[in-house]
Amino acid sequence: ATTFRASEHQHIRYNPLQDEWVLVSAHRMKRPWQGQVEPPLLKTVPRHDPHNPLCPGATRANGEVNPYYDGTFLFDNDFPALQPDAPNPEAARGACKVMCFHPWSDVTLPLMSIPEIRTVIDAWAAVTEELGARYPWVQIFENKGAMMGCSNPHPHCQVWASSFLPDIAQREERSQRAYQSQHGEPLLMEYGHQELLRKERLVLTSEHWLVLVPFWAVWPFQTLLLPRRHVRRLPELTPAERDDLASIMKKLLTKYDNLFETSFPYSMGWHGAPTGSKAGANWDHWQLHAHYYPPLLRSATVRKFMVGYEMLAQAQRDLTPEQAAERLRTVPEVHYRLGQK
Amino acid sequence: ATTFRASEHQHIRYNPLQDEWVLVSAHRMKRPWQGQVEPPLLKTVPRHDPHNPLCPGATRANGEVNPYYDGTFLFDNDFPALQPDAPNPEAARGACKVMCFHPWSDVTLPLMSIPEIRTVIDAWAAVTEELGARYPWVQIFENKGAMMGCSNPHPHCQVWASSFLPDIAQREERSQRAYQSQHGEPLLMEYGHQELLRKERLVLTSEHWLVLVPFWAVWPFQTLLLPRRHVRRLPELTPAERDDLASIMKKLLTKYDNLFETSFPYSMGWHGAPTGSKAGANWDHWQLHAHYYPPLLRSATVRKFMVGYEMLAQAQRDLTPEQAAERLRTVPEVHYRLGQK
Ligand SMILES: O=P(O)(O)O[C@H]1O[C@H](CO)[C@@H](O)[C@H](O)[C@H]1O
Ligand SMILES: O=P(O)(O)O[C@H]1O[C@H](CO)[C@@H](O)[C@H](O)[C@H]1O
Repeated sequence: ATTFRASEHQHIRYNPLQDEWVLVSAHRMKRPWQGQVEPPLLKTVPRHDPHNPLCPGATRANGEVNPYYDGTFLFDNDFPALQPDAPNPEAARGACKVMCFHPWSDVTLPLMSIPEIRTVIDAWAAVTEELGARYPWVQIFENKGAMMGCSNPHPHCQVWASSFLPDIAQREERSQRAYQSQHGEPLLMEYGHQELLRKERLVLTSEHWLVLVPFWAVWPFQTLLLPRRHVRRLPELTPAERDDLASIMKKLLTKYDNLFETSFPYSMGWHGAPTGSKAGANWDHWQLHAHYYPPLLRSATVRKFMVGYEMLAQAQRDLTPEQAAERLRTVPEVHYRLGQK
Repeated sequence: ATTFRASEHQHIRYNPLQDEWVLVSAHRMKRPWQGQVEPPLLKTVPRHDPHNPLCPGATRANGEVNPYYDGTFLFDNDFPALQPDAPNPEAARGACKVMCFHPWSDVTLPLMSIPEIRTVIDAWAAVTEELGARYPWVQIFENKGAMMGCSNPHPHCQVWASSFLPDIAQREERSQRAYQSQHGEPLLMEYGHQELLRKERLVLTSEHWLVLVPFWAVWPFQTLLLPRRHVRRLPELTPAERDDLASIMKKLLTKYDNLFETSFPYSMGWHGAPTGSKAGANWDHWQLHAHYYPPLLRSATVRKFMVGYEMLAQAQRDLTPEQAAERLRTVPEVHYRLGQK
């Protein structure tokens, strides 16, 4: 009888964090691609465009004028999906903010310096604190690239805080709580330890952080970014952990850009223990983490489509998480655009 | 105090079939769109292309030559995500097939005649029977349009059968089973009755079928297609129900094409009671249904991106299901391409 090889034999894997399954069919990478090819990136974004509402000094949709900011800049989303007022007290309420990472439109996180990235991390921690005082969930997320629905090239992320725990937060809450009560330690702490021993899915490690392709990854080059220490929320990070985070983020995002020599699109976001009026409860089963969900599969212009079977039956991937980790490990840590100059 | 209006006030809705939540923020439709605009459709697909592996008489990747079929044509996917052989008996196994709907490449279901669509329905029932004899789940799905990852313009769908219940099938199984044991009738039978009374989310009704935008719809113009009678699986449909299904599908898909005057992209698929060796068990809590998940939001080239917040927190939609149903109701039932000639 043939022995099982993950790279040759289809199999299903379980995601213990979000209680979901994925079908892994690595042999599918052999199939030719004749489908949609994404439009190539517009190469030149001007450093400053006075008509871009995210730029310093620009006028926004509501008539407000942006300051000439020189670090990060946080403001209320002019078209918020969640608003603080609602006709009755039980209704869904929330707040939506936009955070610019840098005054220049022609940079992205991997092209920013480590101190500049550190400023973004501090701003993330601060907004978690500010909105977390009023709301049980503060979702920080970045949509990078037009392919990921990003409608403005200026480097920025969004923050949507809500009066309810969103669906995926609820799933992670249930899974982490159940794991802690069964095993007496946080699911993601134990998971991080195992991956450090096995090594095959690690992408980067540093003094305080780990980056790995999770065993249950759905997107081709999906990663999970975890602190080594048990940390429940962004504001708890020490200065040393924040500096180290800036450095490992720069490495990861440089590897991503280098993989297909493009400004790598993704959606990313932070998950930590719930906040709001119940912030003081016991949330020790939570471990802070960031998810990176990049859509590209084969090249800068050929993405993975999560359609048909994936929408109606189960997520499916075409290379193994171990193969993805291996490729990300071998990609250089110097940005291809800086190497070329 | 202001009274609650779904079209003005954000709110969350529960999907009892898949145990999920969606955030509805209809006021967001006011925001301008500066993001990705999809490439326009290639207008002319030749009726017959001898190099297209889906055409009658063409040679496929494995060297097989297609017959000169004149109705539907079913064959094994040359790059299957699921294969019947696996190194051990407990591993995931399955089969992947492709079904051509018509010998011509330049038609789509809404442009086919009702008897031609009826032939497709009979082929769906037959393949459910064939693969359902061996596998507990037979997923029929159609990815229509390049935007939905479809890599071949020839009208076709896919069938992936598996030795396991996929994730979403498991969710629907749990929800429908729990509802039946609590209320003594199938969830979707009761839901269909309620929608028939309320009418605000109905799109089309016929003697044997209903089409509605479900209360919990995530995609802008998502619909649910339900038989009026309690039917567990496709093969149980009577000849009259099949004819009527062909007719209501033609109407729905014509409305979809007319909405933005384009060949409307979507992923669709059928869900029915599990099959395989346990087909004889009691599955009365299941009601056969089809989901249509179309990505377009504002026009033929501006889609809804399910990214960032949606991937990391919760699905979010920008118009209410009632608004979507209203728009679909008012769109004509004569195809815009036939009206123009
Ligand atoms: O098999 P196809 O049509 O080449 O592939 C398409 O449908 C599959 C099933 O939904 C997806 O996994 C692929 O990402 C998509 O491109
Ligand atoms: O708010 P933006 O950037 O205009 O919008 C983008 O992110 C949102 C949150 O993930 C999504 O709902 C939108 O579909 C996407 O285009």
